[in-house]
Amino acid sequence: MPVLDPSLGPAALTRRLCDIPSVSGDERAIADAIEAMLREHAPHLAVTRDGDTLIARTELGRARRVAIAGHLDTVPINGNLPIRDVLDPESGEPVIWGRGTVDMKAGVGVQLALAVELSDPSVDITWIWYDHEEVASDLSGLGRAMRNRPELFAADFAILGEPSNGTIEGGCNGTLRARVTMLGRRAHSARSWMGENAIHRAGPMLERLAAYEAERVVVDGLEYREGLNAVRVEGGIAGNVIPDRCTIEVNYRFAPSRSVAEAEALVRDFFSDADEVEVVDAAPGARPGLDAPLARAFVEAVGQQPTAKLGWTDVSRFSALGIPAVNFGPGDPLLAHADDEQVPISQIMSCAAALRAWLTAG
Amino acid sequence: MPVLDPSLGPAALTRRLCDIPSVSGDERAIADAIEAMLREHAPHLAVTRDGDTLIARTELGRARRVAIAGHLDTVPINGNLPIRDVLDPESGEPVIWGRGTVDMKAGVGVQLALAVELSDPSVDITWIWYDHEEVASDLSGLGRAMRNRPELFAADFAILGEPSNGTIEGGCNGTLRARVTMLGRRAHSARSWMGENAIHRAGPMLERLAAYEAERVVVDGLEYREGLNAVRVEGGIAGNVIPDRCTIEVNYRFAPSRSVAEAEALVRDFFSDADEVEVVDAAPGARPGLDAPLARAFVEAVGQQPTAKLGWTDVSRFSALGIPAVNFGPGDPLLAHADDEQVPISQIMSCAAALRAWLTAG
Repeated sequence: MPVLDPSLGPAALTRRLCDIPSVSGDERAIADAIEAMLREHAPHLAVTRDGDTLIARTELGRARRVAIAGHLDTVPINGNLPIRDVLDPESGEPVIWGRGTVDMKAGVGVQLALAVELSDPSVDITWIWYDHEEVASDLSGLGRAMRNRPELFAADFAILGEPSNGTIEGGCNGTLRARVTMLGRRAHSARSWMGENAIHRAGPMLERLAAYEAERVVVDGLEYREGLNAVRVEGGIAGNVIPDRCTIEVNYRFAPSRSVAEAEALVRDFFSDADEVEVVDAAPGARPGLDAPLARAFVEAVGQQPTAKLGWTDVSRFSALGIPAVNFGPGDPLLAHADDEQVPISQIMSCAAALRAWLTAG
Repeated sequence: MPVLDPSLGPAALTRRLCDIPSVSGDERAIADAIEAMLREHAPHLAVTRDGDTLIARTELGRARRVAIAGHLDTVPINGNLPIRDVLDPESGEPVIWGRGTVDMKAGVGVQLALAVELSDPSVDITWIWYDHEEVASDLSGLGRAMRNRPELFAADFAILGEPSNGTIEGGCNGTLRARVTMLGRRAHSARSWMGENAIHRAGPMLERLAAYEAERVVVDGLEYREGLNAVRVEGGIAGNVIPDRCTIEVNYRFAPSRSVAEAEALVRDFFSDADEVEVVDAAPGARPGLDAPLARAFVEAVGQQPTAKLGWTDVSRFSALGIPAVNFGPGDPLLAHADDEQVPISQIMSCAAALRAWLTAG
């Protein structure tokens, strides 16, 4: 079993975590290594395991409790392991390069170092590391553990260590996918005028999508930029048949001020000329939650203006439990899943410093 | 082996032919039955076999030779065998109902009856029955036999027994299929403005296709109606990715006055805003050939105004050999491949009568 030595600090932990294979579904080894490290080096934590999800809590009787979470899995490797230390050619800054560095072993490295170090924080902390984030939502280890052990997840505020360039990204947009179908009437393509071409009917909808100016919505002081896009299109039967069916799959990313029902209503209205609109999945956004007192102190500790998180993240699961939640972690979110994923060591260290300062403040 | 008795006439032969399974690729039994019938009942014919294609020629030294051809295969059965005799509820007319009746066992039934009967026609006749018409063009038994035994196919005029409601349908439209591709730039759909949506780019092309008024082109006195249609569309990578590629497959049916090169130029011009246009297959049309002296006599024998054939047929293969060719057979072409395929017995008899009259005329 790989051995994790927390005394080496967050950057060294990041390197070690990256080198343990942990593509979604294969998180046992990394969860085992973390569990062993906690049991050896963090006797102040009550550790619970649910599948390959670990929940490690201080039980100090503090007035407030903070949940701090990160996922253990990565998307598949693509020639970008083992990781290596390089200098960024533009900034000259040292970075750790390779799969998982940004999404999100650096965030987990910061959390693990602090989990061991902070035996006497000023708030109680629930540390959570979970499996199956990079795959279908219903496989989520976080969702599963929340269902299995809800009593372990109570908190006043939550921080998800997703990459945010070391700034606070509040809440997240919601997301909805729908299949929009146009019908027609089949005919032999040698006598096309006897049918009705369903693919041709999709033209005006695609033009409308291209022309659509997605809104920018300010929620609790942060601006959420939306998006409405075709992500798939399919239609056709054979090379000599006028098609009677064409389906556009659209993805609507909507501000956390809208409910899923409101988002669905907008999509149904946008495609009111379609024959069928079927919502295939939807997840609500999360408001930034920056009005909570703990959040205000955290913003101060980080010392930078928070921005809106655009992608859907698991902050939404905390938000659904009534826990305000933000994203905060090292690494550029635009590099998540990219083949040249890389994280500046300075961001790893500054994230650790800000969290430490906040969690130990008066 | 099923036994075919030509003395029963074309309608009875049609029923017998339908009841021999002969979906494309499975033509051996029907070719065997026809070959046996010819060898027993038509000693005036020189019979050659190429795979499951039969070529049966009179060798009377006549001044002119006519090729008369029909395919032996059908599209797959769909609950419409065995065939049965019914009365058409609208016209009250007796029809033979079921798979293959229209496309094109009735035409083959007429041809087989006459092949046996006409031992002393006024022109030499090359009868051709061939395999693999209902599948990819490169599998065609007619094309294969023409390549293997070109000397057997020389003729002054050709008749293909494809369903034409007992009228002469001259020539055929050409057909061309092309894949028209729009490119874009991938991005996460949570930050769609960082990408370029290739599916959205297809909108204007589909609108243009929907608005396009296909031409009607008069060739040798017959009007060919064209068509330009999307027959397939595909695009998209995943539910959360802005797609960088969208492909529309289009089918252009073009009048026989245009060459394949001209048709391709029109399609490329129509989609000049696409990133890629790839022609995936093309077959020229065939001019009606009604100016040939034999054709004029045939039109007179049929006694009806010829019309243009819109679908591509194997007349194009004769046309490519320099042999004027028309379609002439019982059955409504709109019912070809339909589940309720059915042919009026009166059309079988009138087609046989017209062909007999013409082939035996002084």
